[in-house]
Amino acid sequence: MTYGLIIIGGGPAGLSGGMYAARLNLKTLVLAVLPGGLLTNIHDIENWPGEKSISGMDLANNLMEHAKTSGAEIKFEEVTAVEKGKNEAGEAVFKVKTTGGAVYESYSLLFATGGKHRLLNVAGEKEFSGKGVSYCALCDANFYKDKTVLVVGGGDAAAKDAMVLAEKCSKVYMLVRSVLRAEAANIKLLEQNPKIEIIYGTEVAEIMGTGVPSAAGAKVALVRLKSGRELTVDGVFVAIGLDPMNVLAKDLGVKLNDKGEIIVDRASQTNLAGVYAAGDCTDIEIKQAIVGSSQAVMAAFSAYKYIRNLIKIYEK
Amino acid sequence: MTYGLIIIGGGPAGLSGGMYAARLNLKTLVLAVLPGGLLTNIHDIENWPGEKSISGMDLANNLMEHAKTSGAEIKFEEVTAVEKGKNEAGEAVFKVKTTGGAVYESYSLLFATGGKHRLLNVAGEKEFSGKGVSYCALCDANFYKDKTVLVVGGGDAAAKDAMVLAEKCSKVYMLVRSVLRAEAANIKLLEQNPKIEIIYGTEVAEIMGTGVPSAAGAKVALVRLKSGRELTVDGVFVAIGLDPMNVLAKDLGVKLNDKGEIIVDRASQTNLAGVYAAGDCTDIEIKQAIVGSSQAVMAAFSAYKYIRNLIKIYEK
Repeated sequence: MTYGLIIIGGGPAGLSGGMYAARLNLKTLVLAVLPGGLLTNIHDIENWPGEKSISGMDLANNLMEHAKTSGAEIKFEEVTAVEKGKNEAGEAVFKVKTTGGAVYESYSLLFATGGKHRLLNVAGEKEFSGKGVSYCALCDANFYKDKTVLVVGGGDAAAKDAMVLAEKCSKVYMLVRSVLRAEAANIKLLEQNPKIEIIYGTEVAEIMGTGVPSAAGAKVALVRLKSGRELTVDGVFVAIGLDPMNVLAKDLGVKLNDKGEIIVDRASQTNLAGVYAAGDCTDIEIKQAIVGSSQAVMAAFSAYKYIRNLIKIYEK
Repeated sequence: MTYGLIIIGGGPAGLSGGMYAARLNLKTLVLAVLPGGLLTNIHDIENWPGEKSISGMDLANNLMEHAKTSGAEIKFEEVTAVEKGKNEAGEAVFKVKTTGGAVYESYSLLFATGGKHRLLNVAGEKEFSGKGVSYCALCDANFYKDKTVLVVGGGDAAAKDAMVLAEKCSKVYMLVRSVLRAEAANIKLLEQNPKIEIIYGTEVAEIMGTGVPSAAGAKVALVRLKSGRELTVDGVFVAIGLDPMNVLAKDLGVKLNDKGEIIVDRASQTNLAGVYAAGDCTDIEIKQAIVGSSQAVMAAFSAYKYIRNLIKIYEK
């Protein structure tokens, strides 16, 4: 059995693409590791058009239910490799292998693999990871009630992290290497928040703590900045961006830009016939759920047209 | 007073752009004729990601409330002209004139003007317009309860119209000149519906009725096809596509393609600095609410960056 479209990724792009492709009568499989993708880390989303305020988890659930209702199949398996091959009928297909040992075949592919949080790569980061160093403010904010934390980063994700942490912590430092690139609305909120202190123009030199790093009981206690200033903190939240998840695409021969993002055109087409990409793994400038969702809708339509040309439209 | 962004159009693109631009702290004005645009004609939307089923009116209201809550100003005025000019401070601005005689000034513009229903241009169409000839099945279906109607068109809008009408009418003919280009899911539904009869390969030659056309009491009664066949019908629903609303943009010097659609890049930028476009008036292939919405979000971000470069970021 050959799918019309296999979608790798279960974030807003993957789930929207699944909904739309299934509505186009493509036999559609969504392979998701984390249902909802990075959405599920977001406490409160206010810029999904039509939703004044919705939790990431709720939006993820809505998108998943919509994909399922539309007829998309969703499996929670991690993809380990994608290769070109042939199906039993001798037709050219993509073979998608997952950790469970399964191999799925499809006439077309949509990479909606998203991105991965970037690391600071400074002394102490790895050693104190999970012991005061975190990459997810929304997951871990509750552990820092009435404590002092540092948020590293000057983008919108960092701004949002700082605000969420300020709801719980007594003090939030925010370290901005150059300029704040957050939404103006968020910058205003940061500046108005008396718990937040923004430090500009320097970077983290080292993260230090109590106890032997990597040993039980070790904990972040101090951050030394390149400027020489030292901050006494209980936690460090790293929010310096996402790296695109591109390994599967790259191995298949999909063209990437110099940031490692999958190059797509306006119809979400990559350089390979029958292969599409959408969302944070692509070279689209604005990494927002609504944008990835729209890219995936266009990818589904592109896949539909591609398969219609293969006269496989009524597979399902 | 000069706006950061004026958006012309109150459909899903215009309202999403208004929400996003206001969140970016741009002083934003949305000028809408029909709040919700063509959305409001849609009875049931099933492909807005995350909403299994929502009425066009409800989605339009959600988008409008979201734009307002985010700080966008919405005025229900029709734009009559857009010109380049200077504000009191001598800065280059766009001057937007409306039917009320008002002139609004803005540093940037977003055309989200949508499209207009295409006409058949056959004898009887104009004369029986509103007397059996309709361009909005969802507005008028209720007037044709237990009657026989003809839907003209082979696209997705025509397919949806036929299905909506079949809920009310006793018989629905569907006239498809060449091939059905509707979503496969919709084609299936059409073919399964015993009330719907699809006629392929011909076109409307003339719409005829009772009484003197254009006179009171006149009513559609018969449609003659180019094949010679005659259909006894009570109504004709024309669903053969949209023409982009491009006059204001064209007059400003915005570049159009040969279909009259505004040419935009992936950041929703037109050929003119500070001028953006989104939704059905653009050359994007897929004319769907979610796509226009995403285009408008990107346009708002483009406008934000443009104005930040003009050092006008904190206008509001």
